[in-house]
Amino acid sequence: MEPKLSLIYAVSYFAVVIAFAFAVWLHFWVKRQKCTNAKIEEISGLIKSGANAFMRKEYKILAIFAGIAAVIILVLLPTPVWKGDIIRNVEITVSYIAGTVLSAIAGKIGILVATSANSRSASAAQEGIKPAFLIGFRGGAVMGLAVVGFSLLGVASVLLLFKDSTILLGFSFGASSLALFAKAGGGIFTKTADVSADLTGKVELGIPEDDPRNPAVIADNVGDNVGDVAGMGADLFDSNVAAMSAALVIASALGNEVNTAMVFCYAALGLIASIIGIAAARIGKHGNPTRALNSSTYVTTGIYIALTAAATAIFKGFEWRIWGAAAVGLIVGVIIGITTDYFTDDTKPIVQRVAHASSSGSAFTILSGISYGFISALPAMIGIAVSALAAYKICEPLGPGYAMFGISMAAVGMLSIVGMIISNDAYGPIVDNARGLAEMGGLGEETIRVADELDSAGNTVKAVTKGFAIGAAGLTVISLLGAYMSEVNEALAKAGKALITGFDVMNPTVFFGILIGAAIPAVFSAMLILGVDRNAQRMVAEIRRQFKTIIGLKEGKEGVKPDYNKCIDIATHGALRELVPAGLMTIGATVIVGFIGGVSAIGGFLLGNIVTGLLLALFMSNSGGLWDNSKKYVESGNEGGKGSEAHKAAVVGDTVGDPFKDTAGPSINTQITVVSLVASLMSALFAAFSLFG
Amino acid sequence: MEPKLSLIYAVSYFAVVIAFAFAVWLHFWVKRQKCTNAKIEEISGLIKSGANAFMRKEYKILAIFAGIAAVIILVLLPTPVWKGDIIRNVEITVSYIAGTVLSAIAGKIGILVATSANSRSASAAQEGIKPAFLIGFRGGAVMGLAVVGFSLLGVASVLLLFKDSTILLGFSFGASSLALFAKAGGGIFTKTADVSADLTGKVELGIPEDDPRNPAVIADNVGDNVGDVAGMGADLFDSNVAAMSAALVIASALGNEVNTAMVFCYAALGLIASIIGIAAARIGKHGNPTRALNSSTYVTTGIYIALTAAATAIFKGFEWRIWGAAAVGLIVGVIIGITTDYFTDDTKPIVQRVAHASSSGSAFTILSGISYGFISALPAMIGIAVSALAAYKICEPLGPGYAMFGISMAAVGMLSIVGMIISNDAYGPIVDNARGLAEMGGLGEETIRVADELDSAGNTVKAVTKGFAIGAAGLTVISLLGAYMSEVNEALAKAGKALITGFDVMNPTVFFGILIGAAIPAVFSAMLILGVDRNAQRMVAEIRRQFKTIIGLKEGKEGVKPDYNKCIDIATHGALRELVPAGLMTIGATVIVGFIGGVSAIGGFLLGNIVTGLLLALFMSNSGGLWDNSKKYVESGNEGGKGSEAHKAAVVGDTVGDPFKDTAGPSINTQITVVSLVASLMSALFAAFSLFG
Repeated sequence: MEPKLSLIYAVSYFAVVIAFAFAVWLHFWVKRQKCTNAKIEEISGLIKSGANAFMRKEYKILAIFAGIAAVIILVLLPTPVWKGDIIRNVEITVSYIAGTVLSAIAGKIGILVATSANSRSASAAQEGIKPAFLIGFRGGAVMGLAVVGFSLLGVASVLLLFKDSTILLGFSFGASSLALFAKAGGGIFTKTADVSADLTGKVELGIPEDDPRNPAVIADNVGDNVGDVAGMGADLFDSNVAAMSAALVIASALGNEVNTAMVFCYAALGLIASIIGIAAARIGKHGNPTRALNSSTYVTTGIYIALTAAATAIFKGFEWRIWGAAAVGLIVGVIIGITTDYFTDDTKPIVQRVAHASSSGSAFTILSGISYGFISALPAMIGIAVSALAAYKICEPLGPGYAMFGISMAAVGMLSIVGMIISNDAYGPIVDNARGLAEMGGLGEETIRVADELDSAGNTVKAVTKGFAIGAAGLTVISLLGAYMSEVNEALAKAGKALITGFDVMNPTVFFGILIGAAIPAVFSAMLILGVDRNAQRMVAEIRRQFKTIIGLKEGKEGVKPDYNKCIDIATHGALRELVPAGLMTIGATVIVGFIGGVSAIGGFLLGNIVTGLLLALFMSNSGGLWDNSKKYVESGNEGGKGSEAHKAAVVGDTVGDPFKDTAGPSINTQITVVSLVASLMSALFAAFSLFG
Repeated sequence: MEPKLSLIYAVSYFAVVIAFAFAVWLHFWVKRQKCTNAKIEEISGLIKSGANAFMRKEYKILAIFAGIAAVIILVLLPTPVWKGDIIRNVEITVSYIAGTVLSAIAGKIGILVATSANSRSASAAQEGIKPAFLIGFRGGAVMGLAVVGFSLLGVASVLLLFKDSTILLGFSFGASSLALFAKAGGGIFTKTADVSADLTGKVELGIPEDDPRNPAVIADNVGDNVGDVAGMGADLFDSNVAAMSAALVIASALGNEVNTAMVFCYAALGLIASIIGIAAARIGKHGNPTRALNSSTYVTTGIYIALTAAATAIFKGFEWRIWGAAAVGLIVGVIIGITTDYFTDDTKPIVQRVAHASSSGSAFTILSGISYGFISALPAMIGIAVSALAAYKICEPLGPGYAMFGISMAAVGMLSIVGMIISNDAYGPIVDNARGLAEMGGLGEETIRVADELDSAGNTVKAVTKGFAIGAAGLTVISLLGAYMSEVNEALAKAGKALITGFDVMNPTVFFGILIGAAIPAVFSAMLILGVDRNAQRMVAEIRRQFKTIIGLKEGKEGVKPDYNKCIDIATHGALRELVPAGLMTIGATVIVGFIGGVSAIGGFLLGNIVTGLLLALFMSNSGGLWDNSKKYVESGNEGGKGSEAHKAAVVGDTVGDPFKDTAGPSINTQITVVSLVASLMSALFAAFSLFG
């Protein structure tokens, strides 16, 4: 059958419509579930309004930032208006704005459902694991479907409207600017609240983790939502859009429409596979929630591989080799997730060794956690390296340019099941909130036990999805490097200059770029971590002030409430204040290196950034997860259990790990994508002017 | 004047002879100083015999390793004997062995003098800072002169004898295999002893740091010598030889003898500048030892720049542009040292901020130390990037190939004052030992204060020299990458294959190599840190056993002595046992990647290794130094002083920092050099056979 592009577009839109319809149905299904406890309902309302307050503030600042960026894009990109084609500048600006808006809407929807599902899941936990699990999972699935639906909708519409794949990079840049705010800003917010709540509540006053007397407790629960639901959603929206955009830029350079059709077809089938996987997710009455989540992922993977094989068999011109590249990408993604699990699961030796090291003191918790975190990066780096090499070699025989297209399709393949991945990931904060609500609402020990089991499954699965997200980002940015080279050559061709064939590391401007690019993720992470640190200090001061000045609060006197909003305010303002310099440093470094060393230096800069970015992201996410689970392992009675010296040391590890795994580690992905897209969009400017280029 | 090569060789040998004569004079000068305290003399004897025991054991294992390596080289490198020219294999093998032997002799001499100077410096501290400083400094200078003398002697002789610059890479590989053992093995030894002595003595029993009752106290002092004197010396011997070898390989490819002459001439002048700098080092009666050490470095730098300018003016064919490259390298090296100082000096804000963060608990000590460690890497990375780019651009107009020669000469320039650098560095452990001896010998408070001041200067200067060493290694390995490409092309030309022009990051085999190469320094560091951890556990068990079973030891009963040798044994065996897997992993990864991806993958592998290696080395060395000095800052009465919560947290930071700064961080240099040289030596094999190459 002839794969007409119009037919494939129709299939894509059809998949999007199904996804949206299903998401709406799931949303109302969640809404139909009842929450039977007024206190929980009230606290959940506080969380919801706190999350909305953060989102409003964040989107307001983002709107200013995006507005400024839009003006700069309009005037300068891809070529300055006084030189080039103003229509193209307008088109890129429009798609940039569309990228930010669609991602923002998806994030908003995710928060909406997640903050409704938390109280209902807590309430349902009184009846057992089955209904509580389903509410958590289906609440998360709304976010998953919204993200993938909006990304496919956006990419297809931009391409259909403007018929120019370069314009897509503007859309993708919009998505990643939003992701930078959502992921890094949300990450600073959530860890500010978490660290200060623990430090003042658990450590100083000795009150339980989710005690409603603590002024930071609502901010802490809000943080789970804005960091893990909205942040992770924006991150994967960004990766998914970037992967598709890079594949489409490279496909368009190949000059055969069938390749463009293939990208959309595979993306649409990935969405359909996720829908089936979500619909099929079930758990028995006494089932294991971790197994339920993981098996839905495997089911989705299997369905995707089968569906794309069928499409490849049916449509003329769909190459089996490209199918192979996509399949390799997906399978390696799953394998990376599994190796991440090995390093962060408390039934496996590594977590237990770190817990054991804790009995010699916190220095050994830190040293062993850092060491295993470093080692854990190796399998994932090998996985990314092997999948890129395999995809390249599989597709190379198809002709010049196809090898790079193969890598980009491996990234598309890896991200195809992203709907399922986000569902699993957003499940985590919902049941984490539910656990807190069950405690704050006094639902009794058995209910808290059920909620605990659901929460623990969320933590385990989160490690897997994080590994997956970093792996996918790894392949995506490699194809973005390919897209960057396409853009550079387009610009050079227009300027009548000689094209480049690649970026030779023996070229000193490339090498110059590599060394500086390599330092950026380290500095970026450091700025975010120091930001959490400073922000937490401000919040700790506020919490202490409330306990001192609000009479009866410490004693838990009836009717006395802390000022939750003040803490939410501090977390919100601080997060955005600390994030902006880190973002500007990153973009500023790209611009400076570009104007010093030109397009070659930027090629090197991107490479250096990708390489150390991946290494640090894997290291930080995994060691953070490792410390978190080591602490839980000790708390469940090992190495002396709660209150022992080992426990104190493990808590130090967990506190260090918090900003590692929830702020810096996962933000590096976005930092890399932002830099890659800035580079692509500015390539014509760098080609036209640079000091040594 | 015509720069005849024979004349330049004569100058080089003359400089070597002067250096050796001066070293011998300094040695006897140190010996002539008297140690007036029998107890100190006795303990110093224990340290000396412990250091000798370690060196014997280390050299024995090294001899086995080197023997196996020599056989492999003889049979396989540069081409298998059944294919190639057996004479060349014999030549490489001989120079490999010469490289290990000369480096070993230099290390041995350094230990010999350092372990004589420590007691004499302690004794002289009773008379004031001036004589004690001079003994420490001159003792260290013997090592500095020996290292530089032997490296120049070795390189000149190998080239004179075999007239083939490729053979030099064998000599350089010998130097780096020894450095790997000396630096990483010594690093594990010293931190094993340090951590266990602190943990059992200071923390568990509450006895002072250098208390002779502690069975690990001698091992701790031995560790300073084997780690910092022998290890650092071997490291810089390795870098110095590698820098000269790379420059000579590239010079030989240029085909003009004058360039070879220039390399030797500059190296010889560097040695002469160091001799003058050492001879001129002085301190006033109440002088500041830090200033004295730093000003000798600046004096040496100035003399070197002046001498090389004069040589360039005198000799026909010595290009001013190349002089410029060497000068740029040296100046940037000094600047990197100064920025390192900014991050690790306790009179500057960073150390004070980390000390302040410690008052919120050890998690914040760790988080802020890691963050500033990451940030501290940026200026050095920019420095290396800028100096490489500048050297390249300065020398590019001289003709094809000269740009890379410029980079290699920047490395030679940076390393020219290495004699002075080692003198400053070896001064550190001598006065550190002296401080311990003053305490153990009961020389009184005023003497201990003098010794403390000398020791503190050693710590400050060490941060500078470490930054310098890493910077120098950075430029050296870039030129080794150039040397690797020369070797590859030589092999390809012989095989009648097409030459390569570089390593394009868009080539998937290069990219494959980059990703895996980038993970290796992280895994290597992790293995060393875990090695320290495991080894310290064994030693802690032994110390506890001794305190339990040796009656009267804990109480300090007259005549009861701990079994110091047992602890030295454990540290020695453990260090070598933990080091070997890390070394084999590194070399194994290189070989595997080479046979999978061929010469291009190895080009990428080296690049990835260099980039993350530099980043991690800078991060670990600097954050380790930062934590060490933060602890000292708190101990001197800030943030609550000794015994406060901030102090406890700062101690955790220091313990984490110990293996960072003295084991893993500085060993990464050597790891990079070893990998680069293995790659160069095996290039013909990789060119002949690989899976995807």
